[in-house]
Amino acid sequence: MSALLPRLPAHARSTIEIFLRAHALGDGRDGVVVGLSGGIDSAVTARLARDALGPAHVLGVMMPDAAFPSALLAETADYARTLGIEVRTVPIDPIERAFAQAVPGGTDVVSVGNTKARIRMVIAYSIARQHRRLVAGTGNKSELLLGYFTKYGDGGVDLLPIGDLYKTEVRALAAELGLPEAIRSRPPTAGLWEGQTDEAELGAPYEVVDRVLKGLEELRSEAEIVAATGIDPARVRDIARRLADSRHKRRPPPIPKVGLRTVGIDWRE
Amino acid sequence: MSALLPRLPAHARSTIEIFLRAHALGDGRDGVVVGLSGGIDSAVTARLARDALGPAHVLGVMMPDAAFPSALLAETADYARTLGIEVRTVPIDPIERAFAQAVPGGTDVVSVGNTKARIRMVIAYSIARQHRRLVAGTGNKSELLLGYFTKYGDGGVDLLPIGDLYKTEVRALAAELGLPEAIRSRPPTAGLWEGQTDEAELGAPYEVVDRVLKGLEELRSEAEIVAATGIDPARVRDIARRLADSRHKRRPPPIPKVGLRTVGIDWRE
Repeated sequence: MSALLPRLPAHARSTIEIFLRAHALGDGRDGVVVGLSGGIDSAVTARLARDALGPAHVLGVMMPDAAFPSALLAETADYARTLGIEVRTVPIDPIERAFAQAVPGGTDVVSVGNTKARIRMVIAYSIARQHRRLVAGTGNKSELLLGYFTKYGDGGVDLLPIGDLYKTEVRALAAELGLPEAIRSRPPTAGLWEGQTDEAELGAPYEVVDRVLKGLEELRSEAEIVAATGIDPARVRDIARRLADSRHKRRPPPIPKVGLRTVGIDWRE
Repeated sequence: MSALLPRLPAHARSTIEIFLRAHALGDGRDGVVVGLSGGIDSAVTARLARDALGPAHVLGVMMPDAAFPSALLAETADYARTLGIEVRTVPIDPIERAFAQAVPGGTDVVSVGNTKARIRMVIAYSIARQHRRLVAGTGNKSELLLGYFTKYGDGGVDLLPIGDLYKTEVRALAAELGLPEAIRSRPPTAGLWEGQTDEAELGAPYEVVDRVLKGLEELRSEAEIVAATGIDPARVRDIARRLADSRHKRRPPPIPKVGLRTVGIDWRE
């Protein structure tokens, strides 16, 4: 059952660190801001940024809502301390309430969750500007391909250091880096509502999701993926559909082509 | 002095309307939300969307701050009424205050302006979700190429219907559409702070900016643009520099390439 399971390449860590140094220092840039959620993705991202840039150039920001467990807040602050990076805490509830009053009606969990994710984006950019930092996202390849993020929320960042690592590869890297067991074993969650977990929302553990995505990356057909992995065909189809339906989240906004060269189509960058 | 001035193609209007119908209707989508600022770009965008989709499928949203002139608010609502579209008003000051309290220190006009633009994005998406709409941006080609917009603020949209029209072409289209003179003759402003105008910030009127951008679109050298237009070489250089420096605003966040195929690089969409 390990067919198609992504394997962390040996060059991953150094590639990401070189990338971070090239993008986040120089030209008036003084490093990165990383939103710390208590999860493995942000822990790995902060650690790689610290290793690449030095602790003075990484600023962690925790942006809890009222439901965020205070023990997790303390644990996350402890972790930041072990990295030697500064950490700041900005509770988001008063801002959430201001939005809820301004736009009544959007009370379904997804709507509230999207607004939370976007509030965190605004805060991260506000802090980043004050300190001449870039905003480093914590999205991984599994999330990006599934569209499992909020457009212009946690998707609204300047860089995606671990954006080419599947979740299962992030876990392998976290083990290699010796991250605390509490962080590594916590069930993945976007933390946008009580009891939310990635695996319940996606309908499958990341070991399954990643093997399907890896098969699609290798241009295998759905039938070939089923044959190679034994994963239920309906599950494979669902993951392929999520990939197709989320294309708009991975591309700049479409523009109707009117002129000679068009931004996002054939304007040379 | 008219060398290189962009000219609105005859097919612009129909191309944009076909694009809007293809993107904003069907598959559970019920049209667009357009932020109405009182300016020509949003007026043209709302009009084209109304013509393409029908008034029931266009929802205008005005998101004034305290400094927004009440006469302009009334005029904009009147314009929406002539289009036959519904319009909603969501004042943003309470949300701005909540952000200012949460993240003290970001009090420079640009920082405050960016936060305003991002607050409007969050509101537009919140309303769009409630009504199964897409968010239609109002950015034009001049703004996109200069990076004259807030990343994940007014840049945070689903579609850019007039994104391939230079500002001077938008003005020509507004005249062709018979838009009210008050809208057409108002000095362009992002409206992010008192007295802000595009031309003061960009250092030149759009007739100059657009001719330089058009020259760059045609792959002419800066020297050729100066020779063809008589525009000051320092001005041409400044505009070319704005184009180069704003590349990150027109592209998805960069990702270090680790795996076989990477989102935004060689992952097939």
